[in-house]
Amino acid sequence: MTLCSKGGEELNFRMIGYVLGRILLTEAALLVLPLLVAALYGEPVMPFVITIGALLLAGILLGLRRPARTTLYAREGFVVVSLAWIFLSAFGALPFVISGDIPNYIDAFFETVSGFTTTGASILTAVEPLRYSSLFWRSFTHWVGGMGVLVFVMAILPMNDGHGMHIMRAEVPGPSVGKLVSRMSDTAKILYGIYFFMTVLLIVLLMAGGMPLFDSCIHAFGTAGTGGFSSRNLSVGAYNNAYFDVVLGIFMLLFGVNFNLYYFLLIRKFRDVFSSEELRAYLLIVTTAVVAITVNIVHMYDSVWTSLRHAFFQVSTIITTTGYATTDFNLWPSFSKSILVVLMFIGACAGSTGGGMKVARIIIFAKTSFHDMRRMLHPNAVSTVRFEGKTLPDKEVRSVHLYLTMYVFVFVVSLLLLSLEGFDLITTFTALTACINNIGPGLEMVGPMGNYAAFSGWSKLLLSFNMLVGRLEIFPMLLVFAPSVWLRPHTRKRN
Amino acid sequence: MTLCSKGGEELNFRMIGYVLGRILLTEAALLVLPLLVAALYGEPVMPFVITIGALLLAGILLGLRRPARTTLYAREGFVVVSLAWIFLSAFGALPFVISGDIPNYIDAFFETVSGFTTTGASILTAVEPLRYSSLFWRSFTHWVGGMGVLVFVMAILPMNDGHGMHIMRAEVPGPSVGKLVSRMSDTAKILYGIYFFMTVLLIVLLMAGGMPLFDSCIHAFGTAGTGGFSSRNLSVGAYNNAYFDVVLGIFMLLFGVNFNLYYFLLIRKFRDVFSSEELRAYLLIVTTAVVAITVNIVHMYDSVWTSLRHAFFQVSTIITTTGYATTDFNLWPSFSKSILVVLMFIGACAGSTGGGMKVARIIIFAKTSFHDMRRMLHPNAVSTVRFEGKTLPDKEVRSVHLYLTMYVFVFVVSLLLLSLEGFDLITTFTALTACINNIGPGLEMVGPMGNYAAFSGWSKLLLSFNMLVGRLEIFPMLLVFAPSVWLRPHTRKRN
Repeated sequence: MTLCSKGGEELNFRMIGYVLGRILLTEAALLVLPLLVAALYGEPVMPFVITIGALLLAGILLGLRRPARTTLYAREGFVVVSLAWIFLSAFGALPFVISGDIPNYIDAFFETVSGFTTTGASILTAVEPLRYSSLFWRSFTHWVGGMGVLVFVMAILPMNDGHGMHIMRAEVPGPSVGKLVSRMSDTAKILYGIYFFMTVLLIVLLMAGGMPLFDSCIHAFGTAGTGGFSSRNLSVGAYNNAYFDVVLGIFMLLFGVNFNLYYFLLIRKFRDVFSSEELRAYLLIVTTAVVAITVNIVHMYDSVWTSLRHAFFQVSTIITTTGYATTDFNLWPSFSKSILVVLMFIGACAGSTGGGMKVARIIIFAKTSFHDMRRMLHPNAVSTVRFEGKTLPDKEVRSVHLYLTMYVFVFVVSLLLLSLEGFDLITTFTALTACINNIGPGLEMVGPMGNYAAFSGWSKLLLSFNMLVGRLEIFPMLLVFAPSVWLRPHTRKRN
Repeated sequence: MTLCSKGGEELNFRMIGYVLGRILLTEAALLVLPLLVAALYGEPVMPFVITIGALLLAGILLGLRRPARTTLYAREGFVVVSLAWIFLSAFGALPFVISGDIPNYIDAFFETVSGFTTTGASILTAVEPLRYSSLFWRSFTHWVGGMGVLVFVMAILPMNDGHGMHIMRAEVPGPSVGKLVSRMSDTAKILYGIYFFMTVLLIVLLMAGGMPLFDSCIHAFGTAGTGGFSSRNLSVGAYNNAYFDVVLGIFMLLFGVNFNLYYFLLIRKFRDVFSSEELRAYLLIVTTAVVAITVNIVHMYDSVWTSLRHAFFQVSTIITTTGYATTDFNLWPSFSKSILVVLMFIGACAGSTGGGMKVARIIIFAKTSFHDMRRMLHPNAVSTVRFEGKTLPDKEVRSVHLYLTMYVFVFVVSLLLLSLEGFDLITTFTALTACINNIGPGLEMVGPMGNYAAFSGWSKLLLSFNMLVGRLEIFPMLLVFAPSVWLRPHTRKRN
């Protein structure tokens, strides 16, 4: 095994290091916010000061020399994105450890990965004892991770378009990435602008309902990033307030929509919004699930309205992979639980902050299958599959199938490894489901009122890996382990 | 909706009826065997006489006129195969109802579908009270269904080759069907010859170990068809005999191998056997699973040998989707249970009597994914995917992906419907897994010592549908519900 060292085929290590450096500096800047929160509440600021110092040092060292060759190919895009997310989480865990809020580093790493990937799975048995600054940073990672850290970097730093595309492709969820405007960095700015505005709007609405500013920020971050970390042990259920349930339920659904559609709204391309097949399918799935669950649980609550409220909130939180809870759905009947488990896999829309497989992929599966089955019956008929008004190229269909196969592969291997813990199969299965789809809570031991504390260190690392696999949509995290990424093609053994 | 009535595009109803008639007459002939068993044991023969009479009547009426046009296209192949399996089960259930051994018709239908599809799922809480003739017929359906009813008809009745191919394709498991010899009916004869010889050999070996003739036949039928019905309440565990465990364990594995390989052995093409990628992968999976489970359960049994024996038998019975049991694996640790659940989905080799997704498809998934991921990194590299020494055409890859997508679709919809029963999720999930993969036992309530008696009539029909979907590999059972199979293409509304 020799690392390649010359010619156009080598991995551009210097450029990778340079971009990574920029990302670490960005994290240092982001940590100033929780530092201010700590100062405001009279809490120790050292956990953040030390972390910021470490990030500045690493960031400056990595980015010391601007590389002569700034090209980034697909391979480099994958490597940058996976390394960036691992580094961000590794550094981001430090404040929890230093402050003593999460003394064990692996636990803190799990919690931070869970934050950045907007999973919301927690190893904490209670969150209320945490410092304000820790709670703030924990939830702020959701907000940063939701729209994408590298997209953020692209929005604030000048970068060549060619590089940006490969990073966008690797970080933005969904089967394909559409540029909104000709320049990639402008697209990133528009997306973050919409994201920022909607988050502020949500904070205002929550405060209008009587939620304190700090709690409003926490829940707005968790909702915007579709993460699910709360500042309360009982999650949103702690407020037991119909107004909050409805506002958060609606906003979770809104953050689960492809952000491109909001841009179309802004530029008054209303037809593009209402003709979106994905949006329609998403709303149809949500409505069907809410109605089915309401009917199924109506005997458990005092009124149809209460059942509808809980059904709506839980469907919204699960399909968008947020993971807040207003009630312990682990106690619901099997039919409702099955619906929720299916929604966990479907996930939100492509190009949103939500996780899961994405509605767009489900539609592509359905349409391609329907088309191929018709071709079995009428082999000579000529037809094509269309999605969102365009013919689906075979290449994209195949890449969506590749996604499904690799998803199943990672899931099965992880399930076998995780089952070594010896927990019951529902806990094992739904813990993995909740992590790979970036949801947070599963069923039984990891249900909405449970947590991941009982898992061993190895399993926490395995689940962290799965959260990253889910958030980055499999390929970057897997390809980073492929020898052919690191070796020059012609030095590898042919097989 | 108008049924098409002229031209080359119409469904050849007369030919479909003619073939169906032939199949029902064949079932009448097969029922003579349990009739003889009844006579031999002094049990009432009327249940079989009445059923044979009904089959003769229906068969003769359907096959009264040999159709002028004998062409069978792909569509007709699907229709014939699905209708044949439904009719065979509907008539095959009659002896159980008439004899009173299974008084409820839906229960009897479930049990017969389970028999023909070689699932082995039972609604009986105890099998030992059944009459000998009922037990014999119940297990004989495994033997008939294992190699395929229509393949049997093709072996004994003269049929045009073009028709045979479409039927073979719809009934023989696996992603593709290879003709062994130029004439389809000769291929069918060779396959049934090997099948018959191996079954007789197994009966002799079991009798040599001291098993009574009747029991030997029952367990040989269940093993050959990879079905799993036993004449004992405790299944093979009732004998608690290491010799039977080893013999049956090995023969289950043998019947899970592609039968084409036995033909290659016969004609001394040894290289084709040993170079079979599917056979190698199958043996590798079995070995890995046996070792992993043995290590995981060694603390539960008195010796490594006992653990190995139970691990080997259970792995063999599950991967071949037979469903016999020598121990209650529901009590095993989560890791071992997870391995078994994964094996349930993998299934046996293509072209064997086993169910599941088939090892060949898993290999195609793995190879295609590996290939496509490399292409993501090196977009300009030219390469192809090879399987069993041949380049895999894109069409076949796409059809394997279509299979996976439809499999997941049927599974998810059925899971939601089945969860309406309100049983725990493990029971619901594994009951469906065991039925769609034609295994028989699942976990918890439907574990190796449990049964399907508690499910409602609707759920039993749903599970029967899933058994047929699994045995006929999805497409025939789904396409039979497609309007475009029954309507002429140009009379349908365009969408």
